[in-house]
Amino acid sequence: MENPPAFALRRQKLLPALRDARAGAYLATALPNIRYLSGFTGSNAALLITDERAILFTDPRYRTQASRESDCEVRIAKGPLSSEIAVAVQRLRLKSIALERNRIGFEEYQVLASVLSGVRLKPISGAVEALRMVKSADEIAAIRNSVELNSKALDQALRQFKPSMTEVDLAAEIEYRMRRLGADGTAFDTIVASGERTALPHAHPARRPIERNQLLLVDMGANVAGYASDMTRTFGVGRPDAKMRRMYRAVLESQLAAIAAVKPGVTCAQVDRAARSVLRGYGLEKLFVHSTGHGLGLEIHERPRIGRKEAAKLEPGMAITIEPGVYQEGIGGIRIEDTVVVTSRGCEILTPTGKELALL
Amino acid sequence: MENPPAFALRRQKLLPALRDARAGAYLATALPNIRYLSGFTGSNAALLITDERAILFTDPRYRTQASRESDCEVRIAKGPLSSEIAVAVQRLRLKSIALERNRIGFEEYQVLASVLSGVRLKPISGAVEALRMVKSADEIAAIRNSVELNSKALDQALRQFKPSMTEVDLAAEIEYRMRRLGADGTAFDTIVASGERTALPHAHPARRPIERNQLLLVDMGANVAGYASDMTRTFGVGRPDAKMRRMYRAVLESQLAAIAAVKPGVTCAQVDRAARSVLRGYGLEKLFVHSTGHGLGLEIHERPRIGRKEAAKLEPGMAITIEPGVYQEGIGGIRIEDTVVVTSRGCEILTPTGKELALL
Repeated sequence: MENPPAFALRRQKLLPALRDARAGAYLATALPNIRYLSGFTGSNAALLITDERAILFTDPRYRTQASRESDCEVRIAKGPLSSEIAVAVQRLRLKSIALERNRIGFEEYQVLASVLSGVRLKPISGAVEALRMVKSADEIAAIRNSVELNSKALDQALRQFKPSMTEVDLAAEIEYRMRRLGADGTAFDTIVASGERTALPHAHPARRPIERNQLLLVDMGANVAGYASDMTRTFGVGRPDAKMRRMYRAVLESQLAAIAAVKPGVTCAQVDRAARSVLRGYGLEKLFVHSTGHGLGLEIHERPRIGRKEAAKLEPGMAITIEPGVYQEGIGGIRIEDTVVVTSRGCEILTPTGKELALL
Repeated sequence: MENPPAFALRRQKLLPALRDARAGAYLATALPNIRYLSGFTGSNAALLITDERAILFTDPRYRTQASRESDCEVRIAKGPLSSEIAVAVQRLRLKSIALERNRIGFEEYQVLASVLSGVRLKPISGAVEALRMVKSADEIAAIRNSVELNSKALDQALRQFKPSMTEVDLAAEIEYRMRRLGADGTAFDTIVASGERTALPHAHPARRPIERNQLLLVDMGANVAGYASDMTRTFGVGRPDAKMRRMYRAVLESQLAAIAAVKPGVTCAQVDRAARSVLRGYGLEKLFVHSTGHGLGLEIHERPRIGRKEAAKLEPGMAITIEPGVYQEGIGGIRIEDTVVVTSRGCEILTPTGKELALL
C-alpha cells in the first residue's frame, strides 16, 4: 500500500529514539512494527535499523516476497535469524543495539545476548508503537476501507438474519461476508451474544437460537490489507422492554458525547470522562466496566487507550474506537462502537452503520 | 472436555520436571499449557504448581469462568497478574520457581524477576509440551471430532465449487462450513492455491479465478473445542497433464509409505525417510522442501516434528500429520496430508477424506 519513501521516512522518525537510548541500531522483532517500517508482511522476520542502513532478515520461504514488498536490504537466513543478525552486527561494528522490550520473547532475547556477546543490548519500550499512533493519509484510507467493508458485511449478514438462527450461525454468516468482500480474515474473534449473554463483554457465540424480544450484540472487525476495523452494534430482536430501551438511549448519548469530545489537544481521559458522565446522569456509570476505546491500525489494539487515567493527548491522524457500554448481570448489556479519526478540528466518524436502535 | 482428575493427574506428571530443575514450583505462562494443566480457556492467566497446590491467576472478566472450568484455586488479580503471583509465592515461602523459557516474554520475565526478588527463577524448556505429546483418550476423541468436522466442511464447500470461482471465495466457503458445523474458527490461515501458485507451500488465497486444467491445493484445519485438525488435498480442475498425474502418484505413494512406517518405537526421522525414499525413486526428492509432519492438539504445531534429523521415538497416543509434498516453481505443487494417531501396533488414520486424485 505504502510507497517505499514512506517506509524510509518512518525509519528516519525512529532515529531520535535510538539516540535517546544511546544505541547504534534498533532491532525490530514485533511483526507489525517490521511491517510498518519496511512493508514486509511475512511471518518470520527481524529488522535492523541504523542511521544509514535498514536490513531485513527472513527465511528462504520469503526470498521473493521480501524484495518485492520492502525497500530494505534483504538477508536470507538458512538457519536461525539470530545467526544472520550476528553476522550483520559484526560487519557494521555495532557496539549497542536497542531491542523491543515489550515485543521480544525471553528465549529470543537470551539467544541474541549469547550470539551478540560484546554488544550492549538496550531493551526499550514502545518506540515504534508511538510512531504508529498517528496514521498517514494512506493508512487512514486503509482503515476506512476496512471499516466500510466491515459495515457492508454486517448489512449483508443481517439480510440473512431470522429469529431462531443461532449465535454461531450469525457469526459464520458475518465472517463469510467479510471474506467474500475481500477481507483477509477477522481482526479478532467475532462476538455475537443474545439475551442475558449480552451482559458478558466478551461472549463467544454459542450454538443457541437468538430468541425474540431480546437484545442482540454484535462486535466485529475485519482485517483488510493489514488494517483492522472494529464496530459494535446492539439490536432488538422484536421489541425490547422499556428498561432496555432506556439503557440503549443512555449508551448512545454517552457514545455521542465522547465523540463530540474528540479533538486535538484533548486528553484521552477527557474523552473517557465525557462518556462516563452521561452514564452517571442515568445512574448507570457503575455498569460501564471497561475503558471508552483504543487506537487501531495494523493491530486491533494500539495506543492510545481511551481510559480513565490516560493523560496522552489526541492528535490529528489518530484512529480510535469509541465504545461505551453498560452490562447488567442476569439482564443484558448494550455497547455501541464506532471507529473515528481525529481531524484538525474534531473527528470524522468512519463507521457508516446507523446507531438508532434497530429492531430485527 | 476433561474431568477434573485428568488435570490433577497431568500436574502430577509435571512434578518430576520440577525436581530435575530443583525448583519448588512451576509457573505456566503459555495459554495452551495452562489450559492443558487446569482446563481454563481464558485469554489472560498464569498457573502456579507445587507438589500440593495449583493456583490459577486471572483477571475479573474471568471470575465465573475460571471456577467453572478449572479444578484449581482461583486468584483474581485486579491489577497485573504478577503482583498476585508475588503475594502467593511469598505466602508459600517458595525459594525457586521454574519458568517456561520458550513461552514467556522478556518483559514479563523482567517484571516477575523484579516482584519476586529473592526467589530464584529457573527458565526451563518444553516440560509441559513433552507431556502434551502423548494424548489421552479424551484428547484423541477431541482431535477426531475436529478432523471429521474439517473433512465434512471440505465436502460441503466442494459441492459449491465451480471453475471460475476465486481462491478467496472457496476459502470463504470452507471457513463458513467449518463454522456452521460447530468449529470455533480455523486452526490456521486456510490455504487455497491454484495453478502455478500451488508451488508456494504457504500461499494465501488470491482474488483470482481457479482455472480449468490446473491443480488446486487446499490446506485447511478447524479449531473444535480447543483441538486442531489439519488436512491437505490437491485436486485436478479438469484433467491435469501426465506430468502432474505422475507427481500426484509419487506424493500419494510417499504419503502411504510414511503412514506405513508409523508405529511405536520408530523414530520420527525414520518416518521422514520413508516419505523421502519414495520420492527419490521418482527423482523428485529435491522438490520436497519441508518436513514430513508435526504433532498437533491444543496447538496446530506441537512436538514431535517428523523431520529428517528427529531422533524422538513415536509412542502410542501421539497425534501427528503426515504431509509430504513436491513443489516445482513455475509449474505447480502437490501435497497430501492426513492426521493419524499412533496406536499400539501402528497407526490409525483419522482423516476420512479420500486421497485418489479427484477431478473437480
